[in-house]
Amino acid sequence: MTQYVFEMAMTCGGCANAARRVLGKLGEDKVKIDDINVETKKITVTTDLPASEVLEALKKTGKEIKQLA
Amino acid sequence: MTQYVFEMAMTCGGCANAARRVLGKLGEDKVKIDDINVETKKITVTTDLPASEVLEALKKTGKEIKQLA
Repeated sequence: MTQYVFEMAMTCGGCANAARRVLGKLGEDKVKIDDINVETKKITVTTDLPASEVLEALKKTGKEIKQLA
Repeated sequence: MTQYVFEMAMTCGGCANAARRVLGKLGEDKVKIDDINVETKKITVTTDLPASEVLEALKKTGKEIKQLA
């Protein structure tokens, strides 16, 4: 399991929920959401999936996103 | 060309921008965005595409969405 941190243009709780939903679609057993922080705009997850797959899922929200770590 | 109205759980300008982006990915020549209103949560578009295709694109944002008209 690897932990990844993404920065996503979230500006409200609705934005955070959108992130939560698309990550949930990857499979709740596959992606553990460690933190979603609207203030810092950071999303931290732990998963066995490649980071690219998580990034692609988050991109579908239509928000700007990049991987930080 | 047909006009459709959708109701989407938008709560901030970032939510509206996310809708704008996913609609843009369908092709700016294919979907004319008539209005996106965060207050009423309504998205109005005019297009030759089937409503179902627009709905599927908007669903990718991870937000609750339904077609009103």
